[in-house]
Amino acid sequence: MKVTLNRASFLEELATVQRAISGKTTIPILTGVKIKLTEMGLTLTGSNADISIETFLSATDEKANMLIEKTGSIVLQARFFNDIIRKLPEATLTLELVDNNQVIITSGKALFNVNALNAENYPHLPIVEHDQAFKLPARVLNKLINETVFAVSMHESRPILTGVHMILKNNQLLAVATDSHRLSQRMIEVEGDNQDFDVVIPGKSLQELSRTFKDEEDLVSILMMDNQVLFKTENMLFYSRLLEGNYPDTDRLIPTSFNTEITFNVPELLSAIDRASLLSHEGRNNIVRLSINSEEVTIYGNSPEIGNVEEDLSYVSVTGDPIDISFNPDYMKDSLKSFSGIDITIKFISPIRPFTLQPSDGDIDFIQLITPVRTN
Amino acid sequence: MKVTLNRASFLEELATVQRAISGKTTIPILTGVKIKLTEMGLTLTGSNADISIETFLSATDEKANMLIEKTGSIVLQARFFNDIIRKLPEATLTLELVDNNQVIITSGKALFNVNALNAENYPHLPIVEHDQAFKLPARVLNKLINETVFAVSMHESRPILTGVHMILKNNQLLAVATDSHRLSQRMIEVEGDNQDFDVVIPGKSLQELSRTFKDEEDLVSILMMDNQVLFKTENMLFYSRLLEGNYPDTDRLIPTSFNTEITFNVPELLSAIDRASLLSHEGRNNIVRLSINSEEVTIYGNSPEIGNVEEDLSYVSVTGDPIDISFNPDYMKDSLKSFSGIDITIKFISPIRPFTLQPSDGDIDFIQLITPVRTN
Repeated sequence: MKVTLNRASFLEELATVQRAISGKTTIPILTGVKIKLTEMGLTLTGSNADISIETFLSATDEKANMLIEKTGSIVLQARFFNDIIRKLPEATLTLELVDNNQVIITSGKALFNVNALNAENYPHLPIVEHDQAFKLPARVLNKLINETVFAVSMHESRPILTGVHMILKNNQLLAVATDSHRLSQRMIEVEGDNQDFDVVIPGKSLQELSRTFKDEEDLVSILMMDNQVLFKTENMLFYSRLLEGNYPDTDRLIPTSFNTEITFNVPELLSAIDRASLLSHEGRNNIVRLSINSEEVTIYGNSPEIGNVEEDLSYVSVTGDPIDISFNPDYMKDSLKSFSGIDITIKFISPIRPFTLQPSDGDIDFIQLITPVRTN
Repeated sequence: MKVTLNRASFLEELATVQRAISGKTTIPILTGVKIKLTEMGLTLTGSNADISIETFLSATDEKANMLIEKTGSIVLQARFFNDIIRKLPEATLTLELVDNNQVIITSGKALFNVNALNAENYPHLPIVEHDQAFKLPARVLNKLINETVFAVSMHESRPILTGVHMILKNNQLLAVATDSHRLSQRMIEVEGDNQDFDVVIPGKSLQELSRTFKDEEDLVSILMMDNQVLFKTENMLFYSRLLEGNYPDTDRLIPTSFNTEITFNVPELLSAIDRASLLSHEGRNNIVRLSINSEEVTIYGNSPEIGNVEEDLSYVSVTGDPIDISFNPDYMKDSLKSFSGIDITIKFISPIRPFTLQPSDGDIDFIQLITPVRTN
């Protein structure tokens, strides 16, 4: 294997596959990045127990300006390799595999001779058997992920809740995440002749996925396999394992009739909640209290040691019964951030029943749920 | 106490005194910031075992736009107080001391009621008895600090070496720091009718000091007291304790005759050392080897596990005997960074004797020393 190419192009590919490489793996070869050079171009692979990423840099890529002298494959320690490439002195570099699994990296007058591993020992990625993918622009997929993934559980006590439940049925894609204290659900319409599916994808995989797209307009093909999902763009394959088990039925959790409704501007509410949470974070329960009555809407935060805060909130409109309700402000902050800069309507039944948050423009395809905290 | 003022101005003062406030102190009141309001303006104080900082915001400061309704003093928990002020909704805020050591902070519709401590229990700062200070522009003082402080010891095994030795004699100010493996020494001329001194100032104090000056052209008065030093600008007092004990005699350490001299451009040498250290950091000894002979100058780094690196170095000029010498690349990097973008001359006696680094323009007032590592 011998190739000379542009350092910046190579670094960009390395950074992408590195998302899948962990220093903590129990399989030593997975701490490495696999490099495969053919006449077509350069394929890099990184993998851990949950995700695998493969990128392809074409021999005809102009910026990469690749000179392929000899094809071949090798595995290099990812952590050092990336540092070395990053610190090389010149704009181009040469990689050459020599005897005894040694790779020579040269750039300008710098010459690195690094130990490598045999590429034949690198695990094979799953083979895609069918090509019946449904397709989404990266922008739409990223939005779907960002609107739901924050609500997955961080605890392994119920592993299934660490994933996002994705169901495709009659060309409607539903994504739901819940940690049993709050829930976020987004529905989108998709086009084409698509096969239905019902899977649970690890939240961490989706977070990494949303960071790997180079262009928001890339079209992503999504293929379901037995226990894997593949997200495919022109130059990248991103595999994630699926979570096994039954996702709880979340349909019945979302209430449909309410006693109080209030509409807020998201950035204003978010900064008031943020202030109230400064003190609630120091209290034992981390709760803030929202009080809605015909005269005013007020948020309260309290810490016996530090002090307390109250703030009359600006709101767009309010209807229904007065209510006093307490909740975890961090759930509210996460939720508000996922709505970005719009107006939202929060609907309450009672101080002990979950309340919903939705865009106030009538978009019923995006809904969130937060369970209040009972106080006496 | 009651005052209304500009939030950004107040935050700036808070950030300065916060440099002296540690959450880890064993004296509870020192986790707080002392606020003292007089008709003249607002004085803030923060302190820990090593340093104390006092800032003054004048009642006539235009940007601060202060409205003083009632004078007084109070101590507030620094950590929360800063967070609260930072997150307030409006450009101005009001602080009011009410009964029972409660402080009310208002801004827009937000109202915080926080627990405070009695200012009478706050320790008094040392009183400056004389005013015979010598003066330096902040820019000169900062340069002196940055050129020496990196070489102080990080270990408490010899506490005196954690400080910078500063000697004023015949209007020459000498600053020396060493951790016994490397040394940095800078001499500057000062003006005026100054009293000689010989003190050791903790390196950490000097690092914090160099970050507190708002304007590089501020004139800093430096006053020596019994076991304290005071750095004073128009609106700030910065006290540091002095280290007790005898600083070792470093004069005799600096050699005067050499067998090999080589001149490098600092940025080029720095990036080559950086590359070589990538592998040396993984080796057991963390050393790189520099080889100088009549044909070429080469740097070598090696890690049995990862591999090795070699690079022919560009240099400006070389004279004297060939030499092969090994050293810790981190000491070399620290040293090179303190020279910034100039050319330097490195002078060697033998592979087992310390070598010197100096600006190649003949500036003999700045010199550094690094002890090599013996290898066999």
